[in-house]
Amino acid sequence: MITTTIRVRYAETDQMGVAYYANHFVWFEVARGAFCRARGIDYIAMEADGLYLPIMEAKCRYKTPARYDDELTVAVHVSRLTKRTVHFNYTVMRDGTLIAEGETTQMLVDAKGTPRAFPDDIAARFDSEQAC
Amino acid sequence: MITTTIRVRYAETDQMGVAYYANHFVWFEVARGAFCRARGIDYIAMEADGLYLPIMEAKCRYKTPARYDDELTVAVHVSRLTKRTVHFNYTVMRDGTLIAEGETTQMLVDAKGTPRAFPDDIAARFDSEQAC
Amino acid sequence: MITTTIRVRYAETDQMGVAYYANHFVWFEVARGAFCRARGIDYIAMEADGLYLPIMEAKCRYKTPARYDDELTVAVHVSRLTKRTVHFNYTVMRDGTLIAEGETTQMLVDAKGTPRAFPDDIAARFDSEQAC
Amino acid sequence: MITTTIRVRYAETDQMGVAYYANHFVWFEVARGAFCRARGIDYIAMEADGLYLPIMEAKCRYKTPARYDDELTVAVHVSRLTKRTVHFNYTVMRDGTLIAEGETTQMLVDAKGTPRAFPDDIAARFDSEQAC
Repeated sequence: MITTTIRVRYAETDQMGVAYYANHFVWFEVARGAFCRARGIDYIAMEADGLYLPIMEAKCRYKTPARYDDELTVAVHVSRLTKRTVHFNYTVMRDGTLIAEGETTQMLVDAKGTPRAFPDDIAARFDSEQAC
Repeated sequence: MITTTIRVRYAETDQMGVAYYANHFVWFEVARGAFCRARGIDYIAMEADGLYLPIMEAKCRYKTPARYDDELTVAVHVSRLTKRTVHFNYTVMRDGTLIAEGETTQMLVDAKGTPRAFPDDIAARFDSEQAC
Repeated sequence: MITTTIRVRYAETDQMGVAYYANHFVWFEVARGAFCRARGIDYIAMEADGLYLPIMEAKCRYKTPARYDDELTVAVHVSRLTKRTVHFNYTVMRDGTLIAEGETTQMLVDAKGTPRAFPDDIAARFDSEQAC
Repeated sequence: MITTTIRVRYAETDQMGVAYYANHFVWFEVARGAFCRARGIDYIAMEADGLYLPIMEAKCRYKTPARYDDELTVAVHVSRLTKRTVHFNYTVMRDGTLIAEGETTQMLVDAKGTPRAFPDDIAARFDSEQAC
């Protein structure tokens, strides 16, 4: 499991005075980026090699509103890895309070959108997480 | 079922050349706004009366990438209405192609976040949808 | 001058209860898109041909807050065209009220970022605006 | 002068492969937040007291594209303080490279939007910056 910290931006609030619900998916992306850095997965190089990880499915359950300037901890881990897909789980916490939890499914594709199998070295880096 | 049309903004694309996955939830919100207008639900007045509809859960399955300047049709309907919650289903289409489909669950709360039952007239307006 | 209509999204509001200031620049982009369509400028084809119009400078003066669900009219015209740059002016109105006014400067570049002169036919389409 | 670090999010890129131009204004806001924290200005408390700082004018000059995952340093300082307005200047750097520079003007208003003079203690905290 990898954790990263984000601070809620004013831009992310809405007139209800809390973080708008689509932003939690952006925070998930920030956490995936931290995960890749921590596991030595160079996503920029992957895209340069013509490999992309578009989202196939995304879900979030909102438990407690997040507010402007809140410092949130986003924890992410790989819940499942197949030949062509990677599934992440996320929890967003503020101190001991659960803000939200979610999941995403991504599929490896080439520049034409054709599904591809993960190269072994990349699969291993995603997979090592499962042993954590 | 209510439909609304949105055009993909350049701001909504990412470096993969397609609409970024969090934006679909914004389009769902645009569709909910169209739904409320069509059903005579004045959400601005509801908030002025201290009634809010925060999102408790949101989900999207991405079927086909949406691209810059695409004209998309977002269809929305109420899939379930309880005393305190309303569930919407969405489909996003480009011509005959399914771009994405999703669901949201919202709960009626007051300014303190306490769950509230829908006033009868508002419940009826959400509910009329189920007969469509 | 070309006008386009946008409706303020809940996502675009912030906890001050008004549209967050960065969104006006997105609305400017929506207006530029409408301008290009109206003038027969196919920006998607331009990018496919390796021509891009990144923003060099952007400015906005905010006169009146825009609120959720407001219908806004964004008017755009080319204020200046040079061999390699195009300057747009924008006004955002709600009924008779001025919401904001702004300017952008864009430079034509190729995929490597090298400045390029506008092809004659594209220059003519931008320029025709000045006669309006 | 206060500096803060941001990392470019995938959500912030567009199909040109660089950070979309409206996001720089969000980064300016992140820098203003860091400034307030550093100077002991509690903006959340200000809003709770009915004092708001809406943007009256914003400007950005884009020098070098910012890309996904870039670590950027945003420096901010108060360039001018009047009885009712505060002017910030920003520079966004990636290592030694200037990404963008900009300015904002904000006016202190109450909940009704009526201009207000800065309380002395808050003015002093903004002003101390000028001596840096």
